[in-house]
Amino acid sequence: MSVIQDNGLILIIYKDKKYLKRITADQSFHGKGGALRYSDIIGKEYGFRFGDYDIYEPTIEDIVMYAFKRETQIIYPKDSFYITFKINAKNASRVLEVGTGSGAFTYILAHTVGPRGKVVSFEMEDRHYKNARKNIEKYGEWNNVELRNEDVTDYFDGGFDAAFIDVREPWTCLDKVRSLMKESASVGMIVPTANQVSELLRALETGFGYVEVMEIMHRKYKTVAERVRPQDRMIAHTGYLVFARKIETKTMITE
Amino acid sequence: MSVIQDNGLILIIYKDKKYLKRITADQSFHGKGGALRYSDIIGKEYGFRFGDYDIYEPTIEDIVMYAFKRETQIIYPKDSFYITFKINAKNASRVLEVGTGSGAFTYILAHTVGPRGKVVSFEMEDRHYKNARKNIEKYGEWNNVELRNEDVTDYFDGGFDAAFIDVREPWTCLDKVRSLMKESASVGMIVPTANQVSELLRALETGFGYVEVMEIMHRKYKTVAERVRPQDRMIAHTGYLVFARKIETKTMITE
Amino acid sequence: MSVIQDNGLILIIYKDKKYLKRITADQSFHGKGGALRYSDIIGKEYGFRFGDYDIYEPTIEDIVMYAFKRETQIIYPKDSFYITFKINAKNASRVLEVGTGSGAFTYILAHTVGPRGKVVSFEMEDRHYKNARKNIEKYGEWNNVELRNEDVTDYFDGGFDAAFIDVREPWTCLDKVRSLMKESASVGMIVPTANQVSELLRALETGFGYVEVMEIMHRKYKTVAERVRPQDRMIAHTGYLVFARKIETKTMITE
Amino acid sequence: MSVIQDNGLILIIYKDKKYLKRITADQSFHGKGGALRYSDIIGKEYGFRFGDYDIYEPTIEDIVMYAFKRETQIIYPKDSFYITFKINAKNASRVLEVGTGSGAFTYILAHTVGPRGKVVSFEMEDRHYKNARKNIEKYGEWNNVELRNEDVTDYFDGGFDAAFIDVREPWTCLDKVRSLMKESASVGMIVPTANQVSELLRALETGFGYVEVMEIMHRKYKTVAERVRPQDRMIAHTGYLVFARKIETKTMITE
Repeated sequence: MSVIQDNGLILIIYKDKKYLKRITADQSFHGKGGALRYSDIIGKEYGFRFGDYDIYEPTIEDIVMYAFKRETQIIYPKDSFYITFKINAKNASRVLEVGTGSGAFTYILAHTVGPRGKVVSFEMEDRHYKNARKNIEKYGEWNNVELRNEDVTDYFDGGFDAAFIDVREPWTCLDKVRSLMKESASVGMIVPTANQVSELLRALETGFGYVEVMEIMHRKYKTVAERVRPQDRMIAHTGYLVFARKIETKTMITE
Repeated sequence: MSVIQDNGLILIIYKDKKYLKRITADQSFHGKGGALRYSDIIGKEYGFRFGDYDIYEPTIEDIVMYAFKRETQIIYPKDSFYITFKINAKNASRVLEVGTGSGAFTYILAHTVGPRGKVVSFEMEDRHYKNARKNIEKYGEWNNVELRNEDVTDYFDGGFDAAFIDVREPWTCLDKVRSLMKESASVGMIVPTANQVSELLRALETGFGYVEVMEIMHRKYKTVAERVRPQDRMIAHTGYLVFARKIETKTMITE
Repeated sequence: MSVIQDNGLILIIYKDKKYLKRITADQSFHGKGGALRYSDIIGKEYGFRFGDYDIYEPTIEDIVMYAFKRETQIIYPKDSFYITFKINAKNASRVLEVGTGSGAFTYILAHTVGPRGKVVSFEMEDRHYKNARKNIEKYGEWNNVELRNEDVTDYFDGGFDAAFIDVREPWTCLDKVRSLMKESASVGMIVPTANQVSELLRALETGFGYVEVMEIMHRKYKTVAERVRPQDRMIAHTGYLVFARKIETKTMITE
Repeated sequence: MSVIQDNGLILIIYKDKKYLKRITADQSFHGKGGALRYSDIIGKEYGFRFGDYDIYEPTIEDIVMYAFKRETQIIYPKDSFYITFKINAKNASRVLEVGTGSGAFTYILAHTVGPRGKVVSFEMEDRHYKNARKNIEKYGEWNNVELRNEDVTDYFDGGFDAAFIDVREPWTCLDKVRSLMKESASVGMIVPTANQVSELLRALETGFGYVEVMEIMHRKYKTVAERVRPQDRMIAHTGYLVFARKIETKTMITE
């Protein structure tokens, strides 16, 4: 049973709007559906309608989408949920991320590797690093994220099970990232343009194999039983996803 | 460091073909790239080219796609990787699945909830149940999956953190599944036709909120740097994904 | 050589904005790029940059998209350009349209059948009929469109080479439309929901064959050579297109 | 009324298979649905079921898809129907095509410009030129196509209303094509790779404006009323479409 706690998180839905709040008993939410006194709902089990508001326990997606403060374009769930498995991040993995951004994907990874795993994430930009740190500190469940405000070049503690790069020119740090990855481990990257895909493919020609490039399109539907149809507009593009696995540069010769 | 073990798993890639094998020292792989004596590679670290073969450590996706024996249409990674997060399955969750099928999604869920979590999965069809059990036994990492060859109707041990239904008429068991879910928990469903979406939307009108319907399209690209372009053909449709959250049927009145 | 005429049409592009104007020598265009005195450009050949404005001769698409007054959702070029050929409308065809709407598709059809063809289009709604008539009168090239502010039920002059229906419940007039079509002729329809597709498919079971259902997705790209990538957002859905051909209801028996 | 003629064309549909035939009274069709003696159907109106065969009058699309002999990848209807209008080819237009290929698009254009228009199409490759000529001669309706087995570079009879280029390196002939186009006229191009799009965008920077890049995705549905759903597989990519309009290279200065 999940009960709303003082100082806990709630997701409020009013019509199509969503609000994610950390609540305290002395505060209220004021929206178009009227006032919602938090003291009235603390102690109650999540999952109910209160006046015109629906109150749910936030999921990982809700937190990333409605609570995280964004200073950068985040990696959207359609991509991040896929990437996580694709690079084979899993329970107890140690994962490298280059380009923390707002920490949205870092947070997804942290959930994936769990308390016995580790996410080490690099962010050069001071402002983004600080924002990401706040996001992770506020919503992270375990102490399994290490944010580093520095260049990955200066880091030497290798042996990562998986890696992800989200910087403008991923090919510039690819060799370094490769050196920090376990043999056979997967690296994922996201780039917005086809020109970057081309550049990346060239960079992946040595030391990597099993290269894959793809894009994920996500089409939402209206939810009226009598009128099943896609929504009018959709996100057409977030980025091209590129995946590869580390492979020895020398070929063993079969006798 | 991940070293190839006797009785361990390897992924062999030869050109565009992939083979997932459990190997023993006395066996060989015979493909178009010639013979590959397993004794030659046991003890070596994964991630190398041997003659014309690339040898990698299998990922979760590799195992589901290339090792699992399929007796049913499986839920493809483009969908399953997304659903897992969308229903908020995570470390230590207890997840309900109705319709085990070949166990592909069960396996993904098992990885997500990890050794401290639990996946309880129902499959009425004897043949599918047995096949799924073999798949899970062969490739499962922890003892966290409970496969049940019975109707979910006869089950009463509720309190699930998340649920997924993959049966022909999900609306027939929706009430039951709802009764087994925690308040506010998410349920996911996949159905191939728009008519079923319509039926499901009607069934979700009571006791559920935050309903979402969507489809995920996955477009793969060729991986030649000088010729970046999508592959000629793609999978156009696997199913419509439907998500909803359990909500109390009564509305609390604001004074 | 196409020279800008007094009282002729021009397309003005300023950055991403497009304006379609009928110009007279005594008027000017006033936009963010400053004033454009029409007397300065009348007599000049189309296709030039004047200050910050690009001036082109309008195409069929420009006229439909930027000149037509819309009182209804129009059929977009991605669909209308396709439908035209798909129903086999061509030079000198006589085409039936039920549901004139704003006349956008009527106009496309008129161009397709040319001066020797004919488009007969029905619109029940007074307001739409009047608006469409204005659009067609203002921009039509030939006198080959017959707009009728009445129910197609009351019309009996059959023998159409092709037909198109764009009304809410196309199945209600399908029999009538069929009776007005030549044997073997094609009918096209557009409906926004999958429920309507289902209803239509049922209605098409008798008297029609070669049934096709499809949707057309149109993804625009940014036009920067160094950054080839799709635009961020796109239209996700306009409607499902349904096509069928008239066929005799009786089967000839082979001996 | 369209009656099947001796020496006329028919479209035969048997289940999902389509056959386009020119028939003579002394011949028969032999398929899985049994023999179809043409003498039995000559003189009958198109649009009937004969045994297990459906017999229709072929449309433009049928002819291009099922009758044309292909020696090259053709431009598919989803693209060609759109391009035609997009470059503003219309009744009585004079259109330039570089790269006839199998003549599929040439044929569409010929239908669009009608008997008073003209399509001039260039094909360097002898074999393709001959094949296209046969296709056009066999199925063309009017004498409005001029196929030229030569380089467009050697051609000087300009003033085209619209142009289309389908060769491997369209940027190599773009200047020439531009010189043959009317001011303000539209040129369309199709290229399979994003690298080519990038190259083209650079070439279009001078002398062209109103540049557009797009791709058209076409998703077919199954046609069962109770099971509305997309087909399992689709064509993921044919090419990127690029459009631009000719514009003077000098800007007129506003005083």
